[in-house]
Amino acid sequence: MTTIDATPLRGAERPGPRRQEVATKIKEYILRNRLKPGDILPTEAELCDAVGASRSSVREAVKILSALDIVEVRHGHGTFVGRMSLAALVEGLTFRGLLSGEEDHHVLRQVVDVRQTLEQGLAAQVIAVLDGEHRVALSALVDDMESLAAQGKDFLDVDRAFHVKLLEPLGNDLILQLTEAFWQVQAIVAPTLRTEPEDRVITAHRHRAIVDAIAAGNVAGLQAAIADHYAPIRASIARVVRA
Amino acid sequence: MTTIDATPLRGAERPGPRRQEVATKIKEYILRNRLKPGDILPTEAELCDAVGASRSSVREAVKILSALDIVEVRHGHGTFVGRMSLAALVEGLTFRGLLSGEEDHHVLRQVVDVRQTLEQGLAAQVIAVLDGEHRVALSALVDDMESLAAQGKDFLDVDRAFHVKLLEPLGNDLILQLTEAFWQVQAIVAPTLRTEPEDRVITAHRHRAIVDAIAAGNVAGLQAAIADHYAPIRASIARVVRA
Repeated sequence: MTTIDATPLRGAERPGPRRQEVATKIKEYILRNRLKPGDILPTEAELCDAVGASRSSVREAVKILSALDIVEVRHGHGTFVGRMSLAALVEGLTFRGLLSGEEDHHVLRQVVDVRQTLEQGLAAQVIAVLDGEHRVALSALVDDMESLAAQGKDFLDVDRAFHVKLLEPLGNDLILQLTEAFWQVQAIVAPTLRTEPEDRVITAHRHRAIVDAIAAGNVAGLQAAIADHYAPIRASIARVVRA
Repeated sequence: MTTIDATPLRGAERPGPRRQEVATKIKEYILRNRLKPGDILPTEAELCDAVGASRSSVREAVKILSALDIVEVRHGHGTFVGRMSLAALVEGLTFRGLLSGEEDHHVLRQVVDVRQTLEQGLAAQVIAVLDGEHRVALSALVDDMESLAAQGKDFLDVDRAFHVKLLEPLGNDLILQLTEAFWQVQAIVAPTLRTEPEDRVITAHRHRAIVDAIAAGNVAGLQAAIADHYAPIRASIARVVRA
């Protein structure tokens, strides 16, 4: 076990490479021991022995891995293999979205483009996989949206639930996580758009058209309904960009 | 300026929330001062004053932001606003891909699904936007692939260059970054697949079919060519899953 790199001075001089190296060793430890998300890691002292690094190096490396959601530190309980969500993606994209400023909603438009491309590209699979029960659940969510929109209220959470339910039956976690991630970015950046109440009513109705196209088994109709339902947010983005 | 949280003990007891709080303040500083990617941040001492936190808290927060590529520490030069790449996404996905083990190439299949869905969904736009010059460049890359495959060599970098060149003209950075990210995950996880030399030859030829479909302006043909060209990697994944 080496402690050379644990001295504060050396650590301050070149913390990056050493931290990264120990982080890589901890990842290798997780792989070698076939730990799965949610499994507990050994104590800090045991981990130091296992990867041949000092406590301070291990602690630093764990911070990096924690920022990336590869491990999760539960204080008082220990360190666990993380869920490896796309939290880091959301963090980066959201910040980039905000960074680009009100006058430039470039990032938001790109997020809408990716969401629309994915959903349209999955239209045939969605129709093949969604059954009557799914359609009833989607319909109930549209009822909620329409009732909230009629009261002049936002329906961001219902909207999110709708898109998750739409893609969930495909069984691709990555697509679901990306959708969640994009949705979160949109939800955080979109309030700077000042959406009109009428837009909400239109958006709610257009979710209904999506469910109808699924029920009719109409792939091209579903693709068109998906595009239509993004039109109000695209219009909001265009308004801000023009202003 | 408070230094209370800078003591090692307190830092060790509950490092998470304090670090996150200071990280958020640094992000707010970047937004408030309208700094852009590549811009330099003030010195550590100035940053401490600006966000009202101790040196050690700021240093910890900078580590988190650096892991997320929101800032970039260039030793001896200072700390800069980062490129906010999808490096963190790649890190998480790659590790998750490896974590799932050789017997389960679930993540890799999901990555292939997302790449194919995006590329097929963008087929009409690709045809509309790519000009003769782009097609010549793509064709030259296919020449390289075919010649490498004929020598029994890998052509991962050429493959990556091809897919970037295919989508670059669309002008959506997010799609490009996602493609790069997926490609990297695939490149890291794929070597565990033991691709057959014949598969490489087939894959190289099928990139040619993509270029031909673009030249012919055939959207459905391009979508089919994209699906065909992922068939060998899908077959490799299926072989591993069966084994």
